[in-house]
Amino acid sequence: MRKISAVSSTFALLMATPAIAQDTQTAEYPSPNAIVEAAPPSDWVTIAPSDLLVMDLAPDAQGNPRRVIIQLMPEPFSQGWIRNIRKLAAARWWDGTSINRVQDNYVVQWGDASEKKALPEGLETVPESEYLSKLTPIDSESSNIYNSDPVSDATEAYRDDLYGKSLFGLGWPLGSGNNSLWPIHCYGAVGVGRNYSPDTGSGAELYTVIGHAPRHLDRNIAVVGRIVEGIEHLSSLPRGKGQLGFYEDASKRVPITSLRLGDALAEDAPPAFEYLDTNSAIFAKYADARANRRDPFFIKPAGGADICNIPVPVRRVTGE
Amino acid sequence: MRKISAVSSTFALLMATPAIAQDTQTAEYPSPNAIVEAAPPSDWVTIAPSDLLVMDLAPDAQGNPRRVIIQLMPEPFSQGWIRNIRKLAAARWWDGTSINRVQDNYVVQWGDASEKKALPEGLETVPESEYLSKLTPIDSESSNIYNSDPVSDATEAYRDDLYGKSLFGLGWPLGSGNNSLWPIHCYGAVGVGRNYSPDTGSGAELYTVIGHAPRHLDRNIAVVGRIVEGIEHLSSLPRGKGQLGFYEDASKRVPITSLRLGDALAEDAPPAFEYLDTNSAIFAKYADARANRRDPFFIKPAGGADICNIPVPVRRVTGE
Repeated sequence: MRKISAVSSTFALLMATPAIAQDTQTAEYPSPNAIVEAAPPSDWVTIAPSDLLVMDLAPDAQGNPRRVIIQLMPEPFSQGWIRNIRKLAAARWWDGTSINRVQDNYVVQWGDASEKKALPEGLETVPESEYLSKLTPIDSESSNIYNSDPVSDATEAYRDDLYGKSLFGLGWPLGSGNNSLWPIHCYGAVGVGRNYSPDTGSGAELYTVIGHAPRHLDRNIAVVGRIVEGIEHLSSLPRGKGQLGFYEDASKRVPITSLRLGDALAEDAPPAFEYLDTNSAIFAKYADARANRRDPFFIKPAGGADICNIPVPVRRVTGE
Repeated sequence: MRKISAVSSTFALLMATPAIAQDTQTAEYPSPNAIVEAAPPSDWVTIAPSDLLVMDLAPDAQGNPRRVIIQLMPEPFSQGWIRNIRKLAAARWWDGTSINRVQDNYVVQWGDASEKKALPEGLETVPESEYLSKLTPIDSESSNIYNSDPVSDATEAYRDDLYGKSLFGLGWPLGSGNNSLWPIHCYGAVGVGRNYSPDTGSGAELYTVIGHAPRHLDRNIAVVGRIVEGIEHLSSLPRGKGQLGFYEDASKRVPITSLRLGDALAEDAPPAFEYLDTNSAIFAKYADARANRRDPFFIKPAGGADICNIPVPVRRVTGE
């Protein structure tokens, strides 16, 4: 039987920015959380275990396990890098590598600190063109509805913002403009480090956003996923004291004991997550409530919300 | 003699979101950091030590000191709460209190965990009207220049965003609309916790933003300052496991050993900081570069930036 875990740190992470005092609601103006909690099962979309990366860090000083779970982006986004990442995970390439950089209000980055570990054979060199998807959004002026496929016909551009036209599609925040779509660097987004040339990122060097969305990176570096559980194991790490937040002292690097695809986990059941369908009426209601908080704590609804302030609800599902 | 510290974590914190690879520049397209570094001394504005709060936390597990420095907002913003905060600091009210809440991608909150510690006499009850300043910005349609005083005539509205019209004034990011101005909840902003009634925040319970700017809180809760040094001592704390990120286990609370105004420090020289004049030509150039990164790492300038992605440069000055 399908069972939603009652207390899910993912749920809290990706949804909740409750009021400073308390997250409350009224019947007339339910809180964003309450709206999501009332969504029917049919509004939730299962994430395949094969689209999850499970990264285990060495236990903390108290011996507590630290597991971080990443959802990979679906087609047609960033698939060249994602194919490489699947190969790297299958080869257990990250096992024994480490978290090497923690820069406050910016990113946590991991990979091979020596920069000498041989990569598995068969990785692709992904061209610059892959920073944009091949989808062409069709803007209906009257409604801001994007009708392209597979970003389905119910996908609504939420708001014009300073970075173009932002919308939700396939469960992800996306930027659009000049007849293309691209993933957005919101908090918890996972991207591919690279050097100067745009095609130098293999996928072996990854980072996640732990601060205000650095959207100047959109279209300049590949977003390949988002953290759906355990980001606190990265965001609460001590900041690196070297340039760009790299750890100067190698002993500060947290070892990655294993990084596997979700369907490769043998010791226990594969992780099961689902996200709220971003084309659903409930999602639209949730987004509107995020932009116009009227639950009792609030006195002035903002009247808008930037897309990274409307995190897509993701939650863990446990079978029983 | 005036001397700028060569390595300043503040400078890095408030300015830098360098490229993933390296923060570089060319003569034609200098990086935002390089633009700021070239600003003449006359473009920097001194912050009075009496406008700084110095919060010392108990040393970390390795015995390292942890000092957080907060700049209070200038008139005419949030002054009722700031008068209370000055009284609380003078009474050393926070000494012996603690960090009680750390919620990922949201806030760190501190004050009296027992909620029973008597407040000093003479604190004001600050009315809801104080969430807005009494300034009336005058929008010149042609130029987006705000001519109200003391938000001076060179203050430029940077961009229209989803929350109204955002601008920089007196060194701070401000929202505007309906003939009023208000401070913005960017990363590192410090605000006043309250209960349901808008006038219930005394200033004794404070928080800072450690995630994506929660701008739905603007005009709903008072911003009284920003962290100019040491935010990493708060943002890297373990996340609380209780509701809203409160620590359920009291032993997890980090003690505040002292919280004083900058001009009350006896054991050493008062802290000295300065910020880049937000009305200067250099600031405008810096903001434009933040919105249009053309230093070598970048291939697609964003063409815009939300105001919290244009952190006001603040740096420490040390005499010699």
